[in-house]
Parts: sequence; structure tokens; C-alpha cells
Amino acid sequence: MRKILIIGAGKSSASLIRYLLEESDKENLQIIVGDKSVEAVLSKTKNHKNSKAIKLDVFDKENRQAEIKKADIIISMLPARFHLEVAKDCLRFGKNLVTPSYISNEMQALNADVVAKGLVFMNEIGVDPGIDHMSAMQVIDNIRAKGGKILLFESFTGGLVAPESDNNLWHYKFTWNPRNVVVSGQGSAAKFIQEGKYKYISYKKLFRRTEILEVNGHGKFEAYANRDSLKYRHIYGLDDVLTLYRGTIRRVGFSRAWNVFVQLGMTDDDYIMEGSENMTYRDFTNSFLVYNPNDSVELKLRHYLKIDQDDIIWEKLLELDIFNPDKKVGIKNATPAQILQKILMDKWTLSTDDKDMIVMMHKFGYELNGKCKQLESSLMVKGENQTFTAMANTVGLPVGIATLKILNKIITKPGVQLPITKEVYGPILEALKEYGIRFKEREMPYLGYNPNNIVI
Amino acid sequence: MRKILIIGAGKSSASLIRYLLEESDKENLQIIVGDKSVEAVLSKTKNHKNSKAIKLDVFDKENRQAEIKKADIIISMLPARFHLEVAKDCLRFGKNLVTPSYISNEMQALNADVVAKGLVFMNEIGVDPGIDHMSAMQVIDNIRAKGGKILLFESFTGGLVAPESDNNLWHYKFTWNPRNVVVSGQGSAAKFIQEGKYKYISYKKLFRRTEILEVNGHGKFEAYANRDSLKYRHIYGLDDVLTLYRGTIRRVGFSRAWNVFVQLGMTDDDYIMEGSENMTYRDFTNSFLVYNPNDSVELKLRHYLKIDQDDIIWEKLLELDIFNPDKKVGIKNATPAQILQKILMDKWTLSTDDKDMIVMMHKFGYELNGKCKQLESSLMVKGENQTFTAMANTVGLPVGIATLKILNKIITKPGVQLPITKEVYGPILEALKEYGIRFKEREMPYLGYNPNNIVI
Repeated sequence: MRKILIIGAGKSSASLIRYLLEESDKENLQIIVGDKSVEAVLSKTKNHKNSKAIKLDVFDKENRQAEIKKADIIISMLPARFHLEVAKDCLRFGKNLVTPSYISNEMQALNADVVAKGLVFMNEIGVDPGIDHMSAMQVIDNIRAKGGKILLFESFTGGLVAPESDNNLWHYKFTWNPRNVVVSGQGSAAKFIQEGKYKYISYKKLFRRTEILEVNGHGKFEAYANRDSLKYRHIYGLDDVLTLYRGTIRRVGFSRAWNVFVQLGMTDDDYIMEGSENMTYRDFTNSFLVYNPNDSVELKLRHYLKIDQDDIIWEKLLELDIFNPDKKVGIKNATPAQILQKILMDKWTLSTDDKDMIVMMHKFGYELNGKCKQLESSLMVKGENQTFTAMANTVGLPVGIATLKILNKIITKPGVQLPITKEVYGPILEALKEYGIRFKEREMPYLGYNPNNIVI
Repeated sequence: MRKILIIGAGKSSASLIRYLLEESDKENLQIIVGDKSVEAVLSKTKNHKNSKAIKLDVFDKENRQAEIKKADIIISMLPARFHLEVAKDCLRFGKNLVTPSYISNEMQALNADVVAKGLVFMNEIGVDPGIDHMSAMQVIDNIRAKGGKILLFESFTGGLVAPESDNNLWHYKFTWNPRNVVVSGQGSAAKFIQEGKYKYISYKKLFRRTEILEVNGHGKFEAYANRDSLKYRHIYGLDDVLTLYRGTIRRVGFSRAWNVFVQLGMTDDDYIMEGSENMTYRDFTNSFLVYNPNDSVELKLRHYLKIDQDDIIWEKLLELDIFNPDKKVGIKNATPAQILQKILMDKWTLSTDDKDMIVMMHKFGYELNGKCKQLESSLMVKGENQTFTAMANTVGLPVGIATLKILNKIITKPGVQLPITKEVYGPILEALKEYGIRFKEREMPYLGYNPNNIVI
């Protein structure tokens, strides 16, 4: 039997383990899953006859190397910062490696050695990054094959709550790491290009500069700009593209309300608040407002941010209970962002029966035979339940499929890589269709941002 | 003759050198001024018979130590980060030291050795920090001596253009390091206490939460909160104070207009703008606005920040020429803050005949014999000209006076210190009066922030 070693049995590994076990008889596989908690492994492998649960401490070099040596291919589902030692061992023992994470500089630095040994280190093969790369490059390559020139590429992804489980005013629940949501967009300004002009949005204004998206068959959404829109410009071969923008999808109205937290400073994560443990939610909110014992916290906030009494924002704030004088924060030495996360988790945690959803959309503007055209490609995937979430499925399936394609020598080009070549994305996207991960395309008139070609 | 070594002959040393040379006959002093530029020294000592200009490179250990060894007392007017090596040499050779800078952790760490050798290392003896410490502690100690208890302490300082040279709509010119003005307030939130409640203002809102000040005899000013209001709480013995706030003074209306730059992201200093060198002022402004070739940059900005056409903010922006399509930025790889500084320096640089001004104001609320009282203490100092500015005078005079008081053994308590004890501030404040640096006091009803003692 061919041995696949999966390191890390966290939430995101559930669909991956299920997929590989389902394929294990046909493909003659033994799936060895290592984690510091054997219980976590067993809850996912359920003692399947082709599975083996082992205790694996990634910081224990001897333990780690012994297991890597025995396997035919390695999948690291650890947090990105722990991949490097695994990757070095794979290099040493001549094993292929698959991870869903961004390629770090340290990982990239292994490339020459990985190529020299003829190994495949496939990264960024989850959903975002992953499915976004593959689906975009497939369309871009198709347009180019016909002789078209790409003028515009915009790409949007969001992890949301599925419509049937959507029962709050924000139309949002945490379907992944809540902390990343709370601090999203912080750091230097979002940078992108529109019609050849560089544009910058400072965090202060990020949630007031949303784009409205009509996602084919699923209605309207909004997106705020990612900080790194230009990261893949060169990798995708889009150095001359006029418009390049990447964004994060939310339901319409989310960002306008979220901006309240940004403006108050509740998302700040760079200082600790005095007495956070014994603070109430109301104290927390009041900390960001003027001192005035004659005015209510409510009115001070409304006035400060000029929120009309009949604005839906106000209902959204009330729903989160941020004025509650009895609920305690209960976290020592907490930053504002940590406290806000606590408050949001009270309301935005998925219930047992809730389902999540992944929405992805690309816009491609291009010129072909002297005509400008636009193509939109979109994906909507719902989760099955709280284990096989849309997030777990869209991360786990491409990782699992890629692993088998590498093991079966369908994907062979050596190097530290991401899935942007036809050899890689072709068979993987094809296989994903069987699992309902399928993009819908529609042609439409090219919109662009300068329809009259005004020179400015 | 007694030798005083001044290291550093920058702008801020002019008044110090003049003061010590004026005292040199009476006090039997030789003033040795060392700088990496002997020309800079000579422009200030003007070959006065009791002066000596030397080339001194603070990074040249041999050169530095030789000069320190020969002197009776050392004044370091270098940027704060260069004091430490000088301080260590002073410790080694048993010399007293005076600096106008904040006490760094490294400087503080020398305290035990400085005390053991019986040396005086006097720091924070310029204007802010310096005169602010001394003038505040004198009032606080007086109130305490009468049996009063401090309830409130607020302290405000600003370097501004003098009224007779004030000829722009912002009522502001750069009287000190422009860069510090552009990035002022950045970093973690401003933190202070009002009526026992901690309050936080995020940078995003800092310039919309100003306090209006009535400075005795000089009209209205505004102040925005400093990040470090609580820094001296313990040092001043104010651990139980109900209200503690420190702020930076501007003319009324400055902050509201400055907020435009903050909101646009023009004060951001953590990324480099593409093509900054060849960008025009108009391009720079447009970079922060939506792409739309049919709308003017002007209207896009007005709409984005909701600026009415008859709002004075608009005139302030026009005055700075931020929409000029011809003026080039001309700085390679510049951050937004660096570009904004360039634009502001076109308009806010002092002309040859312009004078600057320092405004300082303290508010003290206290309880004495069961009654609440308030005392306000304020200072206004105008510069003489572009050499002997208010800033140079208010930094140089206390440094010079403190140096003579130490040399003459009037200030003797050893240690790494700042001027907060009566032994130190008493004689210095007295001497400063001769130079017009004199606080005006006025009693007024205690205001506080919770006049009805509402419990919240």
C-alpha cells in the first residue's frame, strides 16, 4: 500500500481525510494521520481500515523525521509557520509535499534544491489561495489561447453563512478564524490598479469603499479591497493589465456597519485596555466615547458617528449587545480587538445545525479581434454540516486531489510551486466538478472604468 | 576658567550658547562647542573670546572621550539616541551631564552608578519636556503644601507661528521638525483618564476629539490628545488623580482640516507609493480617491469626505495647492507622509522675518478645606527671530541655567533625573523669569467633567 502522511488533524483536515479514505481502496492507500492529539485524529479517521492514527509532535525532530521517512508523500495541514521543518525533511528524504498555505520566502528558497531532486512541493492548493488561482488561470489561459488580451482582472472570495442559516442582521457568522476577521485589512493601505492608475485605500476608509457585486444567480454582495491585489500580477502574467483588484466578499451592508467598530477603535490590536477582565460590554463601548455622565452611552455613540435613529446600523449594534451593562468581558490584559472578538463570538458562532458557504467571483475584461468583452466566473459552495463545511471541503478536496495526481505521476513538474499551470489546474478542476465545485460563467458587455476612453 | 563642553551645534543650541557666553565673564567660563561641522559652531560662537570651536565626532570614541575628560560639565544637545555613549563617558570620567531629552531606559539604567559617583545627570530640561515639568510641579507642590488634594491635571503645549507672522488659513507653520508634525498621533490609541474612567481615542478619530482652550489673554486654541497622557502620573505623584490629560495645542480649526489628510491616508508612513518621483500634487491626491475619469479630483474628494462647498476646510486645501497638476513631488520611493510633508513645506516654512511662538497651559483642579477649586497657569513666549526662536530660547535657557546651577553646586542631588523637585525647579523657574519666561496664573471655579457627581 502507498502511504500518505497527513500532519495536522484540525478542523480543516476533515474533508481531506474523508476524501482520501474514500479513495483508499481503489488507489491502494494507507492514510496515516499524525497530530499531537490522537483523539483529534480518531474523530476523523473513525478507525477506517486503511487509516492509521499516530501521535506526532512536529517539534520533535526524531518523531517527525521517522514518520516522514516512512511515507510516500506528505501533506502538511499545520498552520503555515510550521511547514518549513516538514519541508526540509521532505527535501532530505526525497518526498513530495502538499500544503494549502501561501509560499513563504523560506519555502521559496528551497526551490533550487527541490528541482534538483526532482520533487514536487505543491502549495496554495486550498480554496483561497488555491481554487481562486486555478479557476482564474484556466479562464486567462483560454482567453490567451484564442488570441485575447486581458485588460481587467478582479477576483473576490468570501466565507459566509449559508442563506438557510442566515438569521442575524449582519448576515454574517464566523465560518473560519474569528481573529482574522476582526483584524482584517489592518496594516498598510490596500493597493490596486484601475485603468492603469495606482489607487490606495487606508484602513480608515477601507469599509467605506466597497464594490457591489452581482453574483450570477445568487444576488448582490459587496466586497472590500484586499491589501495585496498586486501580489499575483507577475505570477499570472498580468504585468500590463489595466485593472487588477482583489476583494473580500460580505453581504451588502456589512462593511458600512463594521466601519463603526473601525472608527471607534474597537478593532485596534496594538495596546492593552486597563481593567479589561472586569469591564462590561457597555464599559468597553464607553471607553471610546467622550466622558459625560449626563449623556447615555447610546446617544454619545450615535452623535459621535452621526448614526440616524432609523439607520439599520443601529439595529445591528443593538443586536450585538454592545451596550449591555451586565455582560463581562472576562479576559485579562485584552486588546480592543480581542474584546470585540469575544462580543461577536456570542452572536456570530455557528449553531450545531448551521451551514456555511463559500462565494467566489472573478471578472475578466479582455480584447479579442478588436472587440472588448467581459466574462464573469462564479462559484457558490455550501457546507454539508459543521464537520464537512464549505471551507473544509473547498480546502480539503483540492489538497487531496492534488496529492493523488502527484502520487500517480499526473502532476510531475518539479519545484516549489502553486497551481497556475494547465498541467496542474486542468485535472484538479475537472475532478472537483464531481464534488459540486464548479464555476458558472457568463458573458456580458465589457464595463471597465473608463468606457469613453477619456485621457486623464 | 571652568570648562563647559556643549556637544552638538544644531538649531536648538543657538540660545544656549548665547546664554552661556553672556554669563561667561561673570561666571569665569570657557564654552567649548563641539560638532561634526566646525562652521556650524562658529556661526553660533562668533569667535567670542570665551568660546572654543572644536570638531567633535560623537562616534569617534577617542575624540569624544578626550574632550569629555577635559571639561567640568557636559551638555549633550545631540538627538536623544546619541546621548548614551556620552553619558557612559561622563560616568567613567566623573562629569556631570545635562540633556533636554526624555530619559531613555538605557539612560535610566545608569542611575545606581551615577548616584554612587555622586554625579548629577539632569535630563528633560528643555521646554516640553522641561518647562512643562517644572511649572506643573511648582503649582502641584504649592497646592499640596497648603493641604490641597489634586483632582485634575491637564497640560497642553504647542509650537506655533506668532500672530504677527500668521498669514495662512491654517494659522500654522513648521517651527520645529516637520516630520514629527505630519506623523503626530500615529501608533496605538491616545489614552487618558477623565473622572476616573480610562478613555481611548484611536488615531482615526484623534483630530475630531479636540478640546477647546481659553488661554489667559491670548484667546482660544484647540488641543488634541497626546498618546502618553499617563506617562508622568506616578512621577508627579498623581496615582489617585481623577482626570489626567496631555495635549498638543493648535489654532482652532486646524485639527478638523488636518483630519482630511488622516482620512485620505496621506499621513500614512508605512508604505511606498508607486512612481512617487514623477507624481504631481494632483496625482498624489487622486491616488486616494476612486477611479472615475468623468469626475474631477476636486469633486471626488469633496464627496468622499462630505465637505460642503462653503466649508473653510475647502479653502485650506486649495491654499496648499493639493490639486495642482503641474507641481511635481520629485522624491523617489516616498511614503504618503513624506509627500505630504513636501507639499506642506511649500507653504508652511517660516519666512526670514517670521517669528514663532510657544504656548503652554496647565489646568489644576483640587480640593482644599472641603472646597473644589481650579487654577490655570499659562505661558506664551515669542521668538526673537529665526535664530533665537521661541523654541530655541525655551529649550536653551533652562538647559543653560540648569548647567550653571549644577556647576555652582546649587543643584546637587545626585542621580539620573528630571526637574521635578523644588530644589531643581525653584531656582531655574526664578532665573527664567528674567528672560520673559513667566507663567500667568488665574483662579476659576472648578469645572471637572462631572459637576453633579453622578455615579455612572
